[in-house]
Amino acid sequence: MSRWEPNTRERLLDAALDLFGERGYDDVTVAEIAERAGLTKRTFFRHFSDKREVLFAGQEPLSRILAETIAGAPAAATPIEAIAAALTAAAEAFGPERRERGRQVQSVVSGHSDLRERELLKHATLTGAMAGALRERGVADPAASLAAEIGGLAFSTGFHRWIAPGSDRAFAELVREALDELVAATATLG
Amino acid sequence: MSRWEPNTRERLLDAALDLFGERGYDDVTVAEIAERAGLTKRTFFRHFSDKREVLFAGQEPLSRILAETIAGAPAAATPIEAIAAALTAAAEAFGPERRERGRQVQSVVSGHSDLRERELLKHATLTGAMAGALRERGVADPAASLAAEIGGLAFSTGFHRWIAPGSDRAFAELVREALDELVAATATLG
Repeated sequence: MSRWEPNTRERLLDAALDLFGERGYDDVTVAEIAERAGLTKRTFFRHFSDKREVLFAGQEPLSRILAETIAGAPAAATPIEAIAAALTAAAEAFGPERRERGRQVQSVVSGHSDLRERELLKHATLTGAMAGALRERGVADPAASLAAEIGGLAFSTGFHRWIAPGSDRAFAELVREALDELVAATATLG
Repeated sequence: MSRWEPNTRERLLDAALDLFGERGYDDVTVAEIAERAGLTKRTFFRHFSDKREVLFAGQEPLSRILAETIAGAPAAATPIEAIAAALTAAAEAFGPERRERGRQVQSVVSGHSDLRERELLKHATLTGAMAGALRERGVADPAASLAAEIGGLAFSTGFHRWIAPGSDRAFAELVREALDELVAATATLG
């Protein structure tokens, strides 16, 4: 197995989800996940610091995509337009072939308080990346923080609708719809 | 020492902050905190599940105050008016005599990633309490979630300004000012 084998993180995630589904999150070890993926424990730890992290495999590139898209948005783009572009770019990573994996990850995470805690940290990292990129564009606080929180809410709402039972709409469509609803709601807060 | 001694949680927090200041957070044990407070380890664990929790001593009553004030706001109050009332009520717990303790807590928390993670969880609990109370009033999502996030941002911003070096303004004033700024910013997001 080459050290540079592509998709190593995804193979580890798939192996982990298989094992968590079979025996529960708590009873599965990193060594077992690596073995199921046909990799070594050493390789696992080259990619993830612990068992929890494998469930959040896609978060780091996501933060980068969000920040880079905001940075690259046209100079005239409003904060929400920049956020909308970022969410749309991020949505490309959420193709229909990933929906079932999204459901499985969410099912494991929602059953463990330490995983929910880690999820909050990841969410804060995403909104922090968006807020930082908006500030770089000259958007002052609190508008930058607020726009980023709205982006984060749109992302979460869109994700939960995307993995809902029976859902067959595209992630990009759901996340943009959630963003539109949030922007409309800003006018109703009084 | 009576089991019903008032302010037990605050005595434990004060003892913990003294010890963390002297020897650093990592090197202090729960037994030492209890001893410094003139209490038993058993008493500590009646109030807090672990060493981290003592730093977030005031969060539970805070969530309750926020939720109850939102529930008790006049029927005609807008979501932001209900949030403003809640933040003002919560601010009563942040008298000037607590400012230095707030600084000490923040200094310990910001130096430890697991404490920052726990802080995010507490923040999510506060915004969750506000969002839930707004929904109970018939505010639909996403307005309820959005108003609660704005309330959470106002709370955090006000808190950081309150503990800033040289700050001498009241927490209530700072948190309301932060809320006003956020509401004004909603109109600039485009």
